[in-house]
Amino acid sequence: MTAKLTTHSYGITRTVSTGFAETIARLRDLLKEEGFGVLTEIDVQRTLKEKIDRDIEPYVILGACNPAFAARSIELEPDMGLLLPCNVIVSRRGGTTHVGVINPQSIVEATANLALAEIAVQVDERLRRVLEKL
Amino acid sequence: MTAKLTTHSYGITRTVSTGFAETIARLRDLLKEEGFGVLTEIDVQRTLKEKIDRDIEPYVILGACNPAFAARSIELEPDMGLLLPCNVIVSRRGGTTHVGVINPQSIVEATANLALAEIAVQVDERLRRVLEKL
Repeated sequence: MTAKLTTHSYGITRTVSTGFAETIARLRDLLKEEGFGVLTEIDVQRTLKEKIDRDIEPYVILGACNPAFAARSIELEPDMGLLLPCNVIVSRRGGTTHVGVINPQSIVEATANLALAEIAVQVDERLRRVLEKL
Repeated sequence: MTAKLTTHSYGITRTVSTGFAETIARLRDLLKEEGFGVLTEIDVQRTLKEKIDRDIEPYVILGACNPAFAARSIELEPDMGLLLPCNVIVSRRGGTTHVGVINPQSIVEATANLALAEIAVQVDERLRRVLEKL
């Protein structure tokens, strides 16, 4: 059984039937299995409420990092930190849970550094497995 | 007096004569003046040392967010969280301090959503002022 993933210019996404918090917890476990630690977590809903009193549905941004790939990509492209970590989003949209990961190919395109292409392929494979196992 | 900024496909960068920690502190103040809070800070040097025993020069990634622009961009582009917050990097490179901010134009290009262009122009102006005042 393969989950239905949607690939767009800068993201790979799917919807899941699990709830918001459960999906985040499951994502953290699956990312870890693929060698990605979650370095940052931004609660967008809470931040916008606190800073500008704006109400939105639950939305978090996880900053996931595979240290070996990150180190190699910074060697190849010193400003690579501008495009790291790999963002993973979880948001509630009208009763369903939406999950997205950055499309690594879009990072290669942004840098125009083809030396990064091989890393992007490997990161892409891992992040897709995470989404498929959710 | 205008500081010398370099614009490349995904970043706007400059070198400064100040040290690493001082530059980070100054950046935080200047970002705040332009309405950007720093939501995350990743110490790349420490992370790579701890996780894979790799030695690199000092390198941090600050995740800067202007809540009004973030909220508007998510309204216009729901997966926008994959490209937020605006990364700012500070790194030491052979005795000098290098600073970079994400080039907002590259975000518009990644999404191909021209409705974001106006926000990108405003974010670009603010981030350039930060770099110029450093």
